[in-house]
Amino acid sequence: MKAVQYRAVGAAPEVVTVPDPEPGPGQVLLKVTAAGVCHSDIAVMSWTADQIPFPLPLTLGHEGVGTVAALGDGVTGLSEGDSVAVYGPWGCGICVNCAEGKENYCLRAKELGIMPPGLGAPGAMAEYMIVDDPRHLVPIGDLDPVKTVSLTDAGLTPYHAIKRSLPKLVPGATAVVIGTGGLGHVAIQLLRAMTAVRVVALDVTEEKLDLARAVGAHEAVLSDEKAAARVLELTGGLGAHVVLDFVGAPPTVQTAGAAARVDGDITIVGIGGGALPVGFGTLPYGTNVSAPYWGSRKELAEVLDLAHAGAVDVHVETYSIDEAPRAYERLHEGRINGRAVILPNG
Amino acid sequence: MKAVQYRAVGAAPEVVTVPDPEPGPGQVLLKVTAAGVCHSDIAVMSWTADQIPFPLPLTLGHEGVGTVAALGDGVTGLSEGDSVAVYGPWGCGICVNCAEGKENYCLRAKELGIMPPGLGAPGAMAEYMIVDDPRHLVPIGDLDPVKTVSLTDAGLTPYHAIKRSLPKLVPGATAVVIGTGGLGHVAIQLLRAMTAVRVVALDVTEEKLDLARAVGAHEAVLSDEKAAARVLELTGGLGAHVVLDFVGAPPTVQTAGAAARVDGDITIVGIGGGALPVGFGTLPYGTNVSAPYWGSRKELAEVLDLAHAGAVDVHVETYSIDEAPRAYERLHEGRINGRAVILPNG
Amino acid sequence: MKAVQYRAVGAAPEVVTVPDPEPGPGQVLLKVTAAGVCHSDIAVMSWTADQIPFPLPLTLGHEGVGTVAALGDGVTGLSEGDSVAVYGPWGCGICVNCAEGKENYCLRAKELGIMPPGLGAPGAMAEYMIVDDPRHLVPIGDLDPVKTVSLTDAGLTPYHAIKRSLPKLVPGATAVVIGTGGLGHVAIQLLRAMTAVRVVALDVTEEKLDLARAVGAHEAVLSDEKAAARVLELTGGLGAHVVLDFVGAPPTVQTAGAAARVDGDITIVGIGGGALPVGFGTLPYGTNVSAPYWGSRKELAEVLDLAHAGAVDVHVETYSIDEAPRAYERLHEGRINGRAVILPNG
Amino acid sequence: MKAVQYRAVGAAPEVVTVPDPEPGPGQVLLKVTAAGVCHSDIAVMSWTADQIPFPLPLTLGHEGVGTVAALGDGVTGLSEGDSVAVYGPWGCGICVNCAEGKENYCLRAKELGIMPPGLGAPGAMAEYMIVDDPRHLVPIGDLDPVKTVSLTDAGLTPYHAIKRSLPKLVPGATAVVIGTGGLGHVAIQLLRAMTAVRVVALDVTEEKLDLARAVGAHEAVLSDEKAAARVLELTGGLGAHVVLDFVGAPPTVQTAGAAARVDGDITIVGIGGGALPVGFGTLPYGTNVSAPYWGSRKELAEVLDLAHAGAVDVHVETYSIDEAPRAYERLHEGRINGRAVILPNG
Repeated sequence: MKAVQYRAVGAAPEVVTVPDPEPGPGQVLLKVTAAGVCHSDIAVMSWTADQIPFPLPLTLGHEGVGTVAALGDGVTGLSEGDSVAVYGPWGCGICVNCAEGKENYCLRAKELGIMPPGLGAPGAMAEYMIVDDPRHLVPIGDLDPVKTVSLTDAGLTPYHAIKRSLPKLVPGATAVVIGTGGLGHVAIQLLRAMTAVRVVALDVTEEKLDLARAVGAHEAVLSDEKAAARVLELTGGLGAHVVLDFVGAPPTVQTAGAAARVDGDITIVGIGGGALPVGFGTLPYGTNVSAPYWGSRKELAEVLDLAHAGAVDVHVETYSIDEAPRAYERLHEGRINGRAVILPNG
Repeated sequence: MKAVQYRAVGAAPEVVTVPDPEPGPGQVLLKVTAAGVCHSDIAVMSWTADQIPFPLPLTLGHEGVGTVAALGDGVTGLSEGDSVAVYGPWGCGICVNCAEGKENYCLRAKELGIMPPGLGAPGAMAEYMIVDDPRHLVPIGDLDPVKTVSLTDAGLTPYHAIKRSLPKLVPGATAVVIGTGGLGHVAIQLLRAMTAVRVVALDVTEEKLDLARAVGAHEAVLSDEKAAARVLELTGGLGAHVVLDFVGAPPTVQTAGAAARVDGDITIVGIGGGALPVGFGTLPYGTNVSAPYWGSRKELAEVLDLAHAGAVDVHVETYSIDEAPRAYERLHEGRINGRAVILPNG
Repeated sequence: MKAVQYRAVGAAPEVVTVPDPEPGPGQVLLKVTAAGVCHSDIAVMSWTADQIPFPLPLTLGHEGVGTVAALGDGVTGLSEGDSVAVYGPWGCGICVNCAEGKENYCLRAKELGIMPPGLGAPGAMAEYMIVDDPRHLVPIGDLDPVKTVSLTDAGLTPYHAIKRSLPKLVPGATAVVIGTGGLGHVAIQLLRAMTAVRVVALDVTEEKLDLARAVGAHEAVLSDEKAAARVLELTGGLGAHVVLDFVGAPPTVQTAGAAARVDGDITIVGIGGGALPVGFGTLPYGTNVSAPYWGSRKELAEVLDLAHAGAVDVHVETYSIDEAPRAYERLHEGRINGRAVILPNG
Repeated sequence: MKAVQYRAVGAAPEVVTVPDPEPGPGQVLLKVTAAGVCHSDIAVMSWTADQIPFPLPLTLGHEGVGTVAALGDGVTGLSEGDSVAVYGPWGCGICVNCAEGKENYCLRAKELGIMPPGLGAPGAMAEYMIVDDPRHLVPIGDLDPVKTVSLTDAGLTPYHAIKRSLPKLVPGATAVVIGTGGLGHVAIQLLRAMTAVRVVALDVTEEKLDLARAVGAHEAVLSDEKAAARVLELTGGLGAHVVLDFVGAPPTVQTAGAAARVDGDITIVGIGGGALPVGFGTLPYGTNVSAPYWGSRKELAEVLDLAHAGAVDVHVETYSIDEAPRAYERLHEGRINGRAVILPNG
């Protein structure tokens, strides 16, 4: 079958032919309908040989949707032809975090060498993929795979970030979303669907702020050195209850710190290399700061339920598997609107 | 191998010889070290043919500890010889409740015909048992299997009940435990270990109240028609924050309702046929009433961690597998002190 | 000044002239802009002399909005002319429940003889009213007093009920609202604004179901003996995550019990004399049942923030103070659409 | 009356004679029984004129216990002679945070010029003090004032920090306490009383580690550059669920960051000038970091309930009011064992 692989450190991804995989006991074979192209793939492909924690070549694709093509021995509860989304942050399934479905915080994955598909294990950017356990699949029924696939990361990650702060997202509260791209524009929609808060979006161009308004932001503010002051002004000088930073660069985390209120939450999702110092006096009293990762199994089911309800819509561009390398190029050049999706069997 | 089976409606359990089981793909074979004898087995054996939701014969035993004897295809993360406890309330592993490890509240178990070992599937009261998935096992290391086995139900069930009410079990709060037998005497220990509340135990004999005091109750009150008034007296007329009823009979649920405070919790664990009416004016404002079932996977791990810390101690009597029918007789006659444990390979 | 009083057991309310009140130390005098007419007033006026816990005559009105007319000694933080809503469930302000603003669950109110305005203390249905402490006032800025006044009870009560169940109201969950009148039609709006759940409304006429749909219910089902079966059908046989019963009559609480799912919540708000028995086997495992009362101080602020955001709209009919007795008559006859509001200075 | 005042920037505190205060409407006059000496007083007295947000002279003492000496107009619910503890972090009582009793996070205190006693308002280190509102008092019954007074800060502050992390402090979890002095040695006792976690204490001398063990730490580890590695070793390489840093210096916050696990909590209480950078990759995934402040009204009541239960014991040295300046000197020199307490009327 064809697969899009990262084959050598520093090289561009290539479309190659590899043997068709077969499911072992307890595994599921998927015929991939759609696979997402993500910035974090580009980040991984920029690492040095020392930094890469898995062997090459690697079949890319940590966002995947497919139909069940074959069931390994002992697998029940699924049927051939079922349309399913892949839960990506695979864990051991046994440790106390996995026992609550928080496989994104698995305590044993590293020790056991368990890695997500497309980020260590063979990923979704191929005609077929192996899913190690049926618990890592969520049936999607008649949802459009192309619109759905990005929700497994670009939807789940902001959902998880928002869910952690729900107790503070009461009616009348203010949530700031920094960065309104792939994850951020979904975050705005999630906040509008799940809460009655006021959403203030920050980004660096008027075009992006227009998108933010179009998907539901109440206020859209240019993300510059005056942005935090503008948030304070909008909140009677008190700051926002929750700040979600999908950029995570040094200037944005600084804005996040300056825009948050006492006993608020700052969640840094973006991998832009910024870090916010927390100690007595560096932030308003009691403000929590964290950098979470992806989401839990139950949260993916909830995100997909939002999709069923029509509450989230991801802007996508589609590419054939042969065009995948070009999709990565375009993403790298900042020329993708929304998310790029590969159709390996399309 | 030998197994203790309930073979015909209304008959006493018997020790019989059955074929040795073999693990299929994804399953685990345990050599059983210890299996618990429980009141709910007696309840099941009192049901009519119409009420029993599974075919007979049934190998009994929903509390089990054993050593891993063989691994089915595809099972990883366990080794032969590992000492493990069985998580009993098996679910589908996939639905949104199971995705959080709340298999005790599985949404699909009934539809899929999934039943706990000893309560539908072949149980632990045999030399060997099949566990359907490694996620239903918790390694217990060097814990004494005989002391540990009852924790999988008689420990987990009160732990789950207490966990639901933790936000109300603040320092200075009062918790009432009605019934200080198998589950209740563990509940008292759990409350003392996990919280700084005052524990008031209610039971019907001075002997049982002595046991309650011995395992940590601050107050021990005779469970009669004046018991609720005594609880009110002990709480400045306000009632208890949390009432846990391990009897669940008509008079005890009435006591529970009369002993609880505004915005309190009443949890009915016992299967004594009582029910407490909830509506405007029947109870203090805002009091929550529920009848939960068993516990979650993560909660079992936490209960076993309490055992590792030496914080719970279950009184047990041991029996060989051939003596199991006699153990059920003695339990039925109310002559077991604490819990009876069968040693199938002892 | 004029006041609407309940003067003798069993008599109709009357408009009388009473002395103008003056604020003592720490108190606030309001010039009442709007006062709500509520079913519970009628319930109180149906009680026998033995049941009434306060002396007559009683100035009615537990829903009030006004402008600050005078401040008692020592009151700060408010100015004459401020438009404010009255938080009704007055408590001691000191006990541990009041220390969290849950004055609706005050532990000492009964002992200290503290009663809500209009339900023991002189209420809002007068030209002026005394509020015992500035903490019982929430500034409403430029909100329309007539549209706002009912939110202090008919908004706060369902808000409190919903807030208790928020962790279960995840995207994809189903909430059932039984009774779509004064409180129920607000509950539907609150659920839509605050969550991404599916709302199923139950009521007894097509006209009321039309209103339910108009304010946001996804499904509207006739509330009869088949209603619970219809809810099960809509939820794949599993039942609703949360059932809010604003009728609380024997048949509706039975429907509530039959429509809820395992580990769900049933909240009985209506005072229709029904009660749901909770014990092992009477309901799905783990379902919580409670009958809460009114709401907390913080919750009132949040409800008013929803009003500021335009997320709730109460249908109101207005009456002058002299017409108040007629408003009660019409309410008793079931002829009020939405809520009746008295304008004492209108 | 006599009062201990900080009178000029950089000067030592002095005992002076000031007019006896009188309670205004809504206020309470206390005859002070005991007042605590705290490190943060020394921090305040090291500030420059620009940094001090209140006028001098200032009567010191933000920890206070006394007996009610007189009630201002309109005050109810207290009687002369009642023994009470002062809740120190005074807020407006009205904003949404105060409405939940979180006056430590009052949104309007700064704007309204509200400051805690001893940190802006006249404090407890005098024969008499004014408390602005009865809600800032908690009756202590027959608790020993000398043993109790430090709990209002040195007890409440760690209690608040622990309470935020309770959901993670499950049985089997590990909590690290860095710094076992005034607050830390109380934190260890609180953790032991309220949870079933393992407590690992870190400090810089064997003598302090002996105290940590004596008050309940399971493990006591020298706080040096190897401390985090030792915590990892004790936790199977996973790190602690919760780290509480009562020092807050650059090296301790670094230890805290290195000792915490994925999805854990790090709480920096100490004002030692350290700050921990939080961003993608700087800490285990999902770890929350915050620097909270003091505690809520309800939390103080809970701390005092723990004292009633005999679960916390603060080591104290007592001084007369005339000796107060010497107590500050000794504290500054590190020569106080536990906490110093002034007896203004002793």
